[in-house]
Amino acid sequence: MELHELALAEAAQSIRTKQVSPLELTEAVLARLDEVEPTVSAFATVTADLAITTAKTLTDEIALGTYRGPLHGVPVGVKDLYDTAGIPTMAGSQVLADHVPTTDSAVTAKLSTLGAVMIGKTHTHEFAYGSLTPASRNPWNPERTAGGSSGGSAAALASGTIMVGLGTDTGGSIRTPASVCGVVGLKPTYGRVSRRGIFPLSWSLDHAGPLTRTVEDAAIVLSHIAGHDPEDPASADVAVPDYTASLKGDLTGLTIGVPVNYFTEHVDPEVMSITETAIATMVSAGAHVRPLTIPLASALEPTEISLLAPEASAIHQYLLRERADRYGEEVRTLLEAGELVPATDYIRALRARTRIQHEIRDMFADIDVLIAPSLPTPAVRLDGPVIRWPDGFVEPATAAYVRFAALGNVTGLPALSVPAGFTTAGLPVGIQIIGRPFEEGTILNVGYSYEALTSWSRLAPL
Amino acid sequence: MELHELALAEAAQSIRTKQVSPLELTEAVLARLDEVEPTVSAFATVTADLAITTAKTLTDEIALGTYRGPLHGVPVGVKDLYDTAGIPTMAGSQVLADHVPTTDSAVTAKLSTLGAVMIGKTHTHEFAYGSLTPASRNPWNPERTAGGSSGGSAAALASGTIMVGLGTDTGGSIRTPASVCGVVGLKPTYGRVSRRGIFPLSWSLDHAGPLTRTVEDAAIVLSHIAGHDPEDPASADVAVPDYTASLKGDLTGLTIGVPVNYFTEHVDPEVMSITETAIATMVSAGAHVRPLTIPLASALEPTEISLLAPEASAIHQYLLRERADRYGEEVRTLLEAGELVPATDYIRALRARTRIQHEIRDMFADIDVLIAPSLPTPAVRLDGPVIRWPDGFVEPATAAYVRFAALGNVTGLPALSVPAGFTTAGLPVGIQIIGRPFEEGTILNVGYSYEALTSWSRLAPL
Repeated sequence: MELHELALAEAAQSIRTKQVSPLELTEAVLARLDEVEPTVSAFATVTADLAITTAKTLTDEIALGTYRGPLHGVPVGVKDLYDTAGIPTMAGSQVLADHVPTTDSAVTAKLSTLGAVMIGKTHTHEFAYGSLTPASRNPWNPERTAGGSSGGSAAALASGTIMVGLGTDTGGSIRTPASVCGVVGLKPTYGRVSRRGIFPLSWSLDHAGPLTRTVEDAAIVLSHIAGHDPEDPASADVAVPDYTASLKGDLTGLTIGVPVNYFTEHVDPEVMSITETAIATMVSAGAHVRPLTIPLASALEPTEISLLAPEASAIHQYLLRERADRYGEEVRTLLEAGELVPATDYIRALRARTRIQHEIRDMFADIDVLIAPSLPTPAVRLDGPVIRWPDGFVEPATAAYVRFAALGNVTGLPALSVPAGFTTAGLPVGIQIIGRPFEEGTILNVGYSYEALTSWSRLAPL
Repeated sequence: MELHELALAEAAQSIRTKQVSPLELTEAVLARLDEVEPTVSAFATVTADLAITTAKTLTDEIALGTYRGPLHGVPVGVKDLYDTAGIPTMAGSQVLADHVPTTDSAVTAKLSTLGAVMIGKTHTHEFAYGSLTPASRNPWNPERTAGGSSGGSAAALASGTIMVGLGTDTGGSIRTPASVCGVVGLKPTYGRVSRRGIFPLSWSLDHAGPLTRTVEDAAIVLSHIAGHDPEDPASADVAVPDYTASLKGDLTGLTIGVPVNYFTEHVDPEVMSITETAIATMVSAGAHVRPLTIPLASALEPTEISLLAPEASAIHQYLLRERADRYGEEVRTLLEAGELVPATDYIRALRARTRIQHEIRDMFADIDVLIAPSLPTPAVRLDGPVIRWPDGFVEPATAAYVRFAALGNVTGLPALSVPAGFTTAGLPVGIQIIGRPFEEGTILNVGYSYEALTSWSRLAPL
């Protein structure tokens, strides 16, 4: 196995035991980056010189006996929405073309302290306001989308240029690219990871979280980036466990909720079949299945949109006045439309969210996790085509890509997307495992146990 | 002293020791009501027959040795915004002319269990959306307003027909009538008292609380109506102490914050002088004074209005469609205007509120309580005239009446209005004592200690 193919846990082990140095690992992924980046275009900014300098320091530390932990010397990619001190942070927009933050976001500051080596800033949909990442391509098929808005992080992971990617998920933007790029994406519970220093899309729906190649890696990263931050008003003061201790590899006694509505409507048959097979695999490992109806399902998307649109417009209101011409047309139109939402609609959506949260909480009384497809379709063409479903229903791919994510964002429940197979055309398909608030340990164990029973490649054959 | 003049604590003592029966007390206040109600018009509905029946049962209980506690047999008035099973609840509006609830509000259910005797439902401004109570008159001068929107409860208290009044305070509606009618009004911390079964004006600003003749009485009532209610989403799960235990009667070591801005602008000179005298009285009892500047003062009212207006419109949206002609013109206009508020304005107000809350919390690091006038003026004429301040500033009385209340509503901090004297024209003036979240015990002790040093009559000479 080549160095760039290692998972985080494997790389950490090699570094800790001095089989590989941070410098060797960094040089290996930068060499890989030279090969694949022209095809994949995962990065908005590559910080190769800084990475080498950092890796040298971290290599010296190891030689002197200092080991900072499992992120020591590990190459990471940071969605260009996260502030990084001294490094351009453009949020995928010409609006911030000149923007170089002076301080780090909460999460990148933690990663830096833990010895992670930043390879670069990864592409995002403009201001994360979209489910594609126009600048990036899917490593499994460069004519297809890498998904969005954390598409750059997913594409970099799947092409072997980073071992950890940071993403944000307001309407699926971690799970969507993870699913279409065949990697793991974790949207933690709302409030679990600080969003300080991340350009907001919607205060009440934004989540920060990791993308990785394995579930174990996601558990490692979450253990290190979660925690209370008084400077993020939504941050929860809930103790952070070592999530790797939850990875028992055993599903005995687990009750899986399997939706009979909503997540079964307008789904690609291959996606549905892969999801059913994945659930059957879990049953063979000791899990029980409980079919259930998602309550208030028809309210999920309207509620999400009524919250997201005006919050995004409130965030951008002054920038949009000053620099309207620098916005892309798609996002500018969305932001202008959001300014027309009446407060009474927003208030009703706030109340609908509370009702949805209560009903879904009640639903979880009988199950441990909910399992559903991450997306209705595998990766679509780069231009995000319109999808025509067999019953005549027509929707833009961008709409299809947020449909199954909404439950996790509106409720704030933790959701993990894990690879579950490939279509006959060779495109990855992910399933999502949704759990109770702050029970990331449970969904990580389910994903880990399932992963152990499968053998999907996490790296695209580039 | 006649029976109807007793304070709650005195009446409770007389009932407990069997000097007075619930029936005697009820008959006494009903007789008083016959005398004064034609002048004061405090009640939307008088429930005399029910009160007599209840009082008889409660009298029998006493005879049999059952004593329910300090509310046993005590006459109360309930703002007509609180649902009362089987009794019309009209919220001061023709819109609800036919409305007879089948269940009690959380608070009236508690009072009923505790043996309180409901004398009737008290007048409110239509749907509590105003700072006057057009149907009621001020017992101290019937040409003047009783304040609003809990004006009926305050007028009934000050005229001797109830010993406890229930009110709600969204923009001062407990403190305003308490101040102009010379009684005590307590707006507890947001979330302290359940609002279940109270017709809402603004979910995020509404508070339920008591009006009484003395501070001790307010402590008794709060001890019995506070507490967590899962059915009010804003209800706080915070333990309820016996607030009467906080009434030490000692101000030694207390630090009083005295504002040098905001609460000093556009204030009637007599009101300002009475406030200063009250603070001097507290200093003579051992308190220290710390002058301070209210932070973000100019944002208080705009923030309150941007939250209140669209929340009220969201609440009334369907009723307004169906029964527009039954609304009064003033409230209908306000509700229609609230529908035009953009969601982005509301969202900015939500964020402004968070900033204000943090800044005010920091301000309280150096003080125990803040003391300020409850209102800029004593009771104005019934028609709510326009006020012309000496510097040329002109404002409707209705606007002046919400100005000093906003801090308590926007922050959710507990605020107690206590009588502090009379103008030369014989109109009562109240001061408000504002405290830290859930520290009602502190403000009650300050009010109690101050009250012990004064000798204002709580009953108007009708």
